[in-house]
Amino acid sequence: MEYQEKLLPREKVFRDPVLNYIYVQHQVILDLINTKEFQRLRRIKQLGPASYTFHGAEHSRFTHSLGVYEITRRICDGFLRNYPSKVEGDGLWDDSQRLVALCAALLHDIGHGAYSHTFEHIFGTNHEAITQEIITSEKTEVNQVLSKISPSFPKEVASVIDHTYPNQQVVQMISSQCDADRMDYLLRDAYNTGANYGNFDLTRILRVMRPYEGGICFEINGMHAVEDYIISRLQMYMQVYFHPVSRSMEVILSHLLQRAKELASQLDKNDRLTPHLLMPFFKNDFTIDDYLKLDDGVLNTYFINWIDSDDKILSDLADRFINRKPLKSVEYNNETESLIPTMQKWIQEAGFETTYYTAVNNSFDLPYDAYDPNKKHHATQIELRRNDGTMIELSKISQLVSAVTGKHLGDERFFFPKEMLSKDSDIDLFEPVYQEFQKHIKNDELIK
Amino acid sequence: MEYQEKLLPREKVFRDPVLNYIYVQHQVILDLINTKEFQRLRRIKQLGPASYTFHGAEHSRFTHSLGVYEITRRICDGFLRNYPSKVEGDGLWDDSQRLVALCAALLHDIGHGAYSHTFEHIFGTNHEAITQEIITSEKTEVNQVLSKISPSFPKEVASVIDHTYPNQQVVQMISSQCDADRMDYLLRDAYNTGANYGNFDLTRILRVMRPYEGGICFEINGMHAVEDYIISRLQMYMQVYFHPVSRSMEVILSHLLQRAKELASQLDKNDRLTPHLLMPFFKNDFTIDDYLKLDDGVLNTYFINWIDSDDKILSDLADRFINRKPLKSVEYNNETESLIPTMQKWIQEAGFETTYYTAVNNSFDLPYDAYDPNKKHHATQIELRRNDGTMIELSKISQLVSAVTGKHLGDERFFFPKEMLSKDSDIDLFEPVYQEFQKHIKNDELIK
Amino acid sequence: MEYQEKLLPREKVFRDPVLNYIYVQHQVILDLINTKEFQRLRRIKQLGPASYTFHGAEHSRFTHSLGVYEITRRICDGFLRNYPSKVEGDGLWDDSQRLVALCAALLHDIGHGAYSHTFEHIFGTNHEAITQEIITSEKTEVNQVLSKISPSFPKEVASVIDHTYPNQQVVQMISSQCDADRMDYLLRDAYNTGANYGNFDLTRILRVMRPYEGGICFEINGMHAVEDYIISRLQMYMQVYFHPVSRSMEVILSHLLQRAKELASQLDKNDRLTPHLLMPFFKNDFTIDDYLKLDDGVLNTYFINWIDSDDKILSDLADRFINRKPLKSVEYNNETESLIPTMQKWIQEAGFETTYYTAVNNSFDLPYDAYDPNKKHHATQIELRRNDGTMIELSKISQLVSAVTGKHLGDERFFFPKEMLSKDSDIDLFEPVYQEFQKHIKNDELIK
Amino acid sequence: MEYQEKLLPREKVFRDPVLNYIYVQHQVILDLINTKEFQRLRRIKQLGPASYTFHGAEHSRFTHSLGVYEITRRICDGFLRNYPSKVEGDGLWDDSQRLVALCAALLHDIGHGAYSHTFEHIFGTNHEAITQEIITSEKTEVNQVLSKISPSFPKEVASVIDHTYPNQQVVQMISSQCDADRMDYLLRDAYNTGANYGNFDLTRILRVMRPYEGGICFEINGMHAVEDYIISRLQMYMQVYFHPVSRSMEVILSHLLQRAKELASQLDKNDRLTPHLLMPFFKNDFTIDDYLKLDDGVLNTYFINWIDSDDKILSDLADRFINRKPLKSVEYNNETESLIPTMQKWIQEAGFETTYYTAVNNSFDLPYDAYDPNKKHHATQIELRRNDGTMIELSKISQLVSAVTGKHLGDERFFFPKEMLSKDSDIDLFEPVYQEFQKHIKNDELIK
Repeated sequence: MEYQEKLLPREKVFRDPVLNYIYVQHQVILDLINTKEFQRLRRIKQLGPASYTFHGAEHSRFTHSLGVYEITRRICDGFLRNYPSKVEGDGLWDDSQRLVALCAALLHDIGHGAYSHTFEHIFGTNHEAITQEIITSEKTEVNQVLSKISPSFPKEVASVIDHTYPNQQVVQMISSQCDADRMDYLLRDAYNTGANYGNFDLTRILRVMRPYEGGICFEINGMHAVEDYIISRLQMYMQVYFHPVSRSMEVILSHLLQRAKELASQLDKNDRLTPHLLMPFFKNDFTIDDYLKLDDGVLNTYFINWIDSDDKILSDLADRFINRKPLKSVEYNNETESLIPTMQKWIQEAGFETTYYTAVNNSFDLPYDAYDPNKKHHATQIELRRNDGTMIELSKISQLVSAVTGKHLGDERFFFPKEMLSKDSDIDLFEPVYQEFQKHIKNDELIK
Repeated sequence: MEYQEKLLPREKVFRDPVLNYIYVQHQVILDLINTKEFQRLRRIKQLGPASYTFHGAEHSRFTHSLGVYEITRRICDGFLRNYPSKVEGDGLWDDSQRLVALCAALLHDIGHGAYSHTFEHIFGTNHEAITQEIITSEKTEVNQVLSKISPSFPKEVASVIDHTYPNQQVVQMISSQCDADRMDYLLRDAYNTGANYGNFDLTRILRVMRPYEGGICFEINGMHAVEDYIISRLQMYMQVYFHPVSRSMEVILSHLLQRAKELASQLDKNDRLTPHLLMPFFKNDFTIDDYLKLDDGVLNTYFINWIDSDDKILSDLADRFINRKPLKSVEYNNETESLIPTMQKWIQEAGFETTYYTAVNNSFDLPYDAYDPNKKHHATQIELRRNDGTMIELSKISQLVSAVTGKHLGDERFFFPKEMLSKDSDIDLFEPVYQEFQKHIKNDELIK
Repeated sequence: MEYQEKLLPREKVFRDPVLNYIYVQHQVILDLINTKEFQRLRRIKQLGPASYTFHGAEHSRFTHSLGVYEITRRICDGFLRNYPSKVEGDGLWDDSQRLVALCAALLHDIGHGAYSHTFEHIFGTNHEAITQEIITSEKTEVNQVLSKISPSFPKEVASVIDHTYPNQQVVQMISSQCDADRMDYLLRDAYNTGANYGNFDLTRILRVMRPYEGGICFEINGMHAVEDYIISRLQMYMQVYFHPVSRSMEVILSHLLQRAKELASQLDKNDRLTPHLLMPFFKNDFTIDDYLKLDDGVLNTYFINWIDSDDKILSDLADRFINRKPLKSVEYNNETESLIPTMQKWIQEAGFETTYYTAVNNSFDLPYDAYDPNKKHHATQIELRRNDGTMIELSKISQLVSAVTGKHLGDERFFFPKEMLSKDSDIDLFEPVYQEFQKHIKNDELIK
Repeated sequence: MEYQEKLLPREKVFRDPVLNYIYVQHQVILDLINTKEFQRLRRIKQLGPASYTFHGAEHSRFTHSLGVYEITRRICDGFLRNYPSKVEGDGLWDDSQRLVALCAALLHDIGHGAYSHTFEHIFGTNHEAITQEIITSEKTEVNQVLSKISPSFPKEVASVIDHTYPNQQVVQMISSQCDADRMDYLLRDAYNTGANYGNFDLTRILRVMRPYEGGICFEINGMHAVEDYIISRLQMYMQVYFHPVSRSMEVILSHLLQRAKELASQLDKNDRLTPHLLMPFFKNDFTIDDYLKLDDGVLNTYFINWIDSDDKILSDLADRFINRKPLKSVEYNNETESLIPTMQKWIQEAGFETTYYTAVNNSFDLPYDAYDPNKKHHATQIELRRNDGTMIELSKISQLVSAVTGKHLGDERFFFPKEMLSKDSDIDLFEPVYQEFQKHIKNDELIK
């Protein structure tokens, strides 16, 4: 039998706490899961430092990737059962697209690295580009498995992920404002953090989802389920993803990696403190193979060792990260932003190098966007299909969604050492500094 | 105010997916959570290699320890509300015992290391002894926090954990056949694996639990809740904890560490493959501080590097562990045990060193034990209290529990490389070996 | 011991699927539950005809009332633990108010009758007035139990329910925009219908709720939990409470009772079709005792008998109600409202008496209201308490809530017999009527 | 299109709290649900008087019947996907059997009456015979719908229910030791009572279930899921179905109906107390139409009226039933059984007619039965299929199941008026009677 069509003798299942069971029917999917690049995702936390705030959030990108695969599989099953294409171009579902959809779903995060976003920021890597490379480079096991389907198959899978694949139904399954990726991470993050705001009715959304010539739309009688999903997503951003304590741990991590990069030559001594696997990144000369050796545990191992460094800042930041000693923060706005340099001055006077011990961080999300002719870029808007076949865009009929459409929600915060709020400071010398500093903080906000 | 009585200005809560919220009211508990020894537990998985079988089981000993603390806190609250001691020796609950109970609950696993049981087996460490040491050694942050309560407090906490503390109610809360430790791990492991067999009615058990002069007993009208807990525990053992694939990954880990230990001097070269933090253990000369630097990520980092080792066995075992390539296994019994040497011979002939590529592994659990005058050691049996105050032991009135009392349930398995089952082996030379080997395996059992 | 303070020798629990357990500690609460007026609530469905749409919604006002009691009890417990009053007028919680709060919570729906809202509409009864009467009339068991606390106690309980009780904390627990009543019905209706939109984080809301001099407010860090509750409530209205099929069954019920009332003298023959227990209502001369004999089953029993009536309309409406034959409906708006008389004309021509077979029904809800100086009546707005003790009203900081504040959400529908949409009508004579009728319906809306 | 194959234009779903959604694809299923005989099931509680103990258990036989249908549908889907028959007699699943299976599943309880078991006991009806009659009698709507499939179809459906249908796979889906009926009621009763003992892993059981020539078996790797289901069922019996308070309410109901039957001629006066719809049963001369007019509400309506009867016993028993005033009970055994006449004598002396106010009631269940050559009747035992195709019976490999196989579990209780336990009896005259009586009761048991 062709590898492409090779089904497992008996479908395999993985017990999953969020989706109950994950069903694998194709040999190629099982083979992809067993590649070393995919297994590596077990060692990378889905939410990075968020587990410092929500201790249950210890789940990995591995489980999330399986989840995205499974939701995509269920979408395909529903489409095949209810909307199978009969003639080309009828806008219905062509099930020969299933395999490329499943592979793209499974691999969409394969390029994520340890502490992804922070790492990228410091080392200039790009997880999307690396995802493309892992899929298309002949050196990876992932590529070798995909190539067994056909020589062009890896590129097809990669093109789904970068949105250039011609079949928009496949693209939107994996990436749109209501896709398998977002649906899985909301449910999974909610399950693991315990923040039940992320829950929505997956079964119903899958039921009202349908293919059409423009991609994927939803039946109008499922409007409330889609609305509920948008609101849930918004709530998870506000309460989990943007949590100030998690962001403060990211600030520390970022400054720690920055400091290490600056000390690169000092660290390159072949002793216990040498971050062998990071050196190619310090030197900005790394291969995909170097990248794939990294994971959360590798970075943490270096941080644990760096606690014993002679460099006070490196040592202190490593200690703060490994042993969870977050910075404090306050919200600021346009009016109070001008106070920040003064605040930083006091912090410097109290003995903290501001480059490493303060930061401003803005977290904003666009919960939902509809088409706007004045904007260049815009997300695929969510279309609802009326009984007579005409479409209406979500925010047109949902007052709740309409209230947040096109609005960036979030906040801007100024981060600083917890020590600045210490009330019983024993360093008399600086006491006035603390007092001045504290005068400008009230109700979690910077004030004049 | 005395540190001992120091309550937080406002009780703190941690969102917990299993217990909903974890409530912290005492400054000392918050301070213990913030010690580096406790934070380290975030980096050690509760179930070790079981996440290779149940991918959701990525939770750490940190979350479990918080859970044991919280269940203990709820037990204390229930005892205080319903059974407060009025005069000494009345067998009721003396709430001045609360703090020692809470601290012991929180810290009961503090000595667990990376991949605990396997590590202990190879390096002769003992997590219980190390727990005692972390609590009582003046060098640890944990000890420093506990000592602020009173100089003798650390020893009291340690004595709860080693069962020598005089108040048996406190001891049995943390360690007995129905204690906060077991209750939390069953619920948490069930939640994270998705194996719902581990669920039972915690609220009801807490409600029927009561103190008496001999420790802790249960009201007779809660018999079914306790019975259900015993059965749930049994089912989790049979289906999750004893899963053959997880055990096979433990076999690989054990052989990998064994091989590394044998190669210790070769590895000690100050290069990328050097396991700096493991060296004290290879040399059997380590401090508590050395021990506390280890975690799952540190060991994995060494394994990742060892994949590039020149030692074929070290490299291969590291690859099998990191990239999840489990051994296969079959059940054997007294009758078929004698076949194992022959099976091993064939395996050796097929090119696998039997020391590293085969193993026998027996997993047995005693789901419940009642007092037996003929045995030396025995667990505290579960006592149910009738309305008139007399006691009856659980297995006396539960037919289900009675059916498993005193019986060790589990199985014995023989582990070997998956390659031995390969059907399209291309190594003609050994083909007869594979055929002979496979003849002795049927229905997951070794047969004659 | 005084009856007022009489606690049960051991607190009693009721297993509850929604709140897990309901705890009863006071003798008076147990005695109230055992009155015949309270037991009657078992025979009245919480959601009336909604179970014709959501078949799981078979729960009664009895279980809901226990739930409201339990949530109130938990609020009191939280207030006592965290905000006990120390001096009168300090705005904190005075636990001597607990009993009146618990009794009012338990009894707040005691005056609800069978198919409450529809029944009231036809017979001019008022469940709130009847609630007051049941509590204060000396003839009821409820009153006799309450009077054992003190002669004035029944009136106090009644005054909580009609909002005139002086302690606003007690009043707002039972009745405000975020009270025990609404919280229980949302959770319980969601649980039983299976419509998970009604879920929100009860534990967290109870935790951030606090007493203040003006009643009850919420800590600002609980804003998102309160917001989520408001949104959940809105979603339950849109999707469950306003479901067109349930409303159509209410229309049938209303017309059925109306028809029976008109036929009252004919029905009063002491035969099988005589609705003995309804006669006092037909005659508009009923006692509280008459009222308390009615329940859903009694009315259904009459309806079952009326199916055999000689009156075609009574018989047909009874059959449609008992055997679930809902009307169809379409949405209309200001513009299309003028079409309704024409539609009714066609319906009449098709043989259906429009008085009994058509209806317009508007369902609107005000999901949240803030104080508006221009309005006479307004709900108690939800106040959030900042860290420094100042208050801010919910819609001021929640964009989602702000989007729906003061807006009435819902729709207006026109109901008509399903037969009008029949496609293969065999009554040739009327065919043009059906065709004309159907031309004005598209996408579930009335069109011109 | 043939009615038999007529699918709905778009599958319909019903939101179900237990199974999430119930999917209807065939016109015939929708038509059956809309018959008046099936709609009647909405008015009959699944657990009868058990809601007096577990207040949440207010669900009806209607929702249960939909659930059994849905589970059967899922079984068929799984069988069709994984085990489709290729040649007749291959022991695999022939999907042309689907419709008869679905109809039988939906209708298996259609003959249940109000308070079924008690009613049958008093009036000699038999719900199984009535189920057959409703399906096969030409007078019912159910029969008319089924006959549209084919003239012989109603009989085929009926034969599935009485186990004589030739295809044993269809029979065992609906009725065996692990069938759709039992699986639905366990899950649904657990959900509604809140007694989570009834939960088991339905998805997994459906996955390991497979057809074979002898009916239905289970794959051996699903042994633990089946074991867990057996244990769950046992626990529900012990804790919910056999609850002494529910049984005591059944005793009252039974005695109430008995008394009414004895007073039949007195009640037949065409006044408010006349139970018109019961009269045919009092006279033992009823039609299927008479039977179908009864439901819980109808009986309750008569009971409510009878509270005003002049007959003290009828009035008192009606009051006890309607207003939930259960009898008390104690366990007895072979040894203490002989005490019962004496206890009854004291009860009679205290003023209670023993015929109506006392009862013995034995509740026993056989949690699981395996084939025993010495017994005449036996249940279909549960067979597990090994990898090589051979079968092994469940109790052979499950120690837990083995412990309860063939054993009847339950208890024997003696019921009596609560007044006998009154401690502060004010009827001095009888005081010694109470004292004697109470001496023989200890720890919920009858003692000598």
